[in-house]
Amino acid sequence: MKRVVLASYPRGNPQPSDFRIEEVAVPEAGEGELLLRTLYLAVDPLIRFSLDERLLSGASRMEPGAVMVGPTVCQVAASRHPDYAPGDVVEGRSGWQEYSVAAPDRSDYRGPPRKVDAALAPVSTALGALGGPGQTAYEGIVNVGRVKAGETVVISAAGGAVGSIAGQIVKVLGGRAVGIAGGAAKCAALLDLGFDAVADYRAPDFADQLGAALPAGAEVYLDNVGGDVTLAVLAHLKRGARMPMCGFIAYYGMGMEGPGPDRLPGFYRQIMAKALEIRGFAGIFAGQKGLAAIAGWMKEGRIRLAESVVDGLEAAPGAFSSVFSGHDHLGKLLVRVAPEA
Amino acid sequence: MKRVVLASYPRGNPQPSDFRIEEVAVPEAGEGELLLRTLYLAVDPLIRFSLDERLLSGASRMEPGAVMVGPTVCQVAASRHPDYAPGDVVEGRSGWQEYSVAAPDRSDYRGPPRKVDAALAPVSTALGALGGPGQTAYEGIVNVGRVKAGETVVISAAGGAVGSIAGQIVKVLGGRAVGIAGGAAKCAALLDLGFDAVADYRAPDFADQLGAALPAGAEVYLDNVGGDVTLAVLAHLKRGARMPMCGFIAYYGMGMEGPGPDRLPGFYRQIMAKALEIRGFAGIFAGQKGLAAIAGWMKEGRIRLAESVVDGLEAAPGAFSSVFSGHDHLGKLLVRVAPEA
Repeated sequence: MKRVVLASYPRGNPQPSDFRIEEVAVPEAGEGELLLRTLYLAVDPLIRFSLDERLLSGASRMEPGAVMVGPTVCQVAASRHPDYAPGDVVEGRSGWQEYSVAAPDRSDYRGPPRKVDAALAPVSTALGALGGPGQTAYEGIVNVGRVKAGETVVISAAGGAVGSIAGQIVKVLGGRAVGIAGGAAKCAALLDLGFDAVADYRAPDFADQLGAALPAGAEVYLDNVGGDVTLAVLAHLKRGARMPMCGFIAYYGMGMEGPGPDRLPGFYRQIMAKALEIRGFAGIFAGQKGLAAIAGWMKEGRIRLAESVVDGLEAAPGAFSSVFSGHDHLGKLLVRVAPEA
Repeated sequence: MKRVVLASYPRGNPQPSDFRIEEVAVPEAGEGELLLRTLYLAVDPLIRFSLDERLLSGASRMEPGAVMVGPTVCQVAASRHPDYAPGDVVEGRSGWQEYSVAAPDRSDYRGPPRKVDAALAPVSTALGALGGPGQTAYEGIVNVGRVKAGETVVISAAGGAVGSIAGQIVKVLGGRAVGIAGGAAKCAALLDLGFDAVADYRAPDFADQLGAALPAGAEVYLDNVGGDVTLAVLAHLKRGARMPMCGFIAYYGMGMEGPGPDRLPGFYRQIMAKALEIRGFAGIFAGQKGLAAIAGWMKEGRIRLAESVVDGLEAAPGAFSSVFSGHDHLGKLLVRVAPEA
């Protein structure tokens, strides 16, 4: 079997050369364990966080030579656990490898591998609309953002897994969804998904596009990027605006400090001047309620699936790298490691 | 009469030489107006904000030659308005001058001059515990911070007008109050006011003092300073901590950007990693409910007054400057311009 390991810590944006593909024997499941065959792995930018030698904590820092971590959808190839049968599809965090062993009774705080109902939706959605990104979008718009009908909601990384769902939830709630994404094609795709307006952060007239999309400002900003995009959005937020924060891809390659000048003074100034409410959150702690709501909206045709798939484990390093250099995929970016049996 | 005008925009921390004292004729009250005699003026660090040529908005930017703005307690010297009588004491924003004219029917969003009940407490408290700083402390601890019994609350600028009241409100609510202030004398005074623990940000072992004061972390951080102090506190906040933000004196002399490195990436990282809730707020929008509560607690002896008074309008520029260089006064810093008649 093949697996992808970290070759060396990336400098700045990750490159395919930061990773290495190894061939090893397929592991065996012991008593109470499962052998899992990976179907899909999610290209999750948050993993960048762990690839940093400056991290003090060994628990969250990945060491060179280790198998890349990350969410996956797998099929049970062999089971020595009474609750799982061969052929079951599960969501787990088995990482970038073709096979892995899971021990449901010794799982971490995320719990044992979650069974995926293949009758409900394509199993890949367990990594997108009906998985972590869906939970994050629901938590950010409904619980943290508390979006009400008639409110305007700006969403950064709107073409991504979280953003593309979040914008559609805004529409379900009767709000106005304004998406920020990179490139004219992705912006057009967002309008097609139902966003009311878009702004292309790669366009030279991004500031004008954003102003035109927000003639009366915004009540909520779902921030997934930080950096220049966020500083541009702040100028358009209304007094008392809520700013749920679920990521900051602009800073993942940095430690605690980036190159100067220091922009924290301006950030403070905006928080105070506009009485902003900022809240960091992770969808993983949001429970299952949001996923049930999204599944219902998908069934009613009110939320459409957006995902992009590349084929083969060998494509994972390149796909991961592309996320940081502004790729053209819409929705969750997945690697199909093997076909469903 | 004398008045203090801005001579030139301060570079960095304000200096007395940035101001000039002028002598002019006492103005006269027209129909519907009041002639006010200034008793006290509040040395309010927020004024620093307006003394910045980089501010684009002429509305909030003060021009050189203008009379310094700021909250005052005044006595009505002559009244041509039916609702005010000579001798009435009022709170207003008449600035750094011995006399001024007010037009109650043409007041801004702050409303007409507010009458101060001299029987309730010394009239100077209208600028401290029973004025803007009291409103800010109440709003920050009770409404934004939502402090509950048993919670630990860190307060920066704890020796200041807001902080010294905020810590005492924490104690009324059954919380644990940890104050950060500059200098051993001020820290000792805070313990005397009822704070449970203190840390001296000027001491070389500040980090150790803070750690010792927060062995189990903190649920709430009332931030009034920003800068190094806040970055030190963030490390001690618990997951989901609330961070009401009412000022950031560390940055008042800067525009939107300070000297590098850029600390915004680390700030984002902490917000996400700890799921922090940050909310900027201004006590001025908090209404009168908090002041009634504080007046009641003062009457019961549960909140003690902390204020420092210097004498004479000429002392105002030096007092203002001292706030930015870390002065030794406890509580609200006031200038007594004239005795009550």
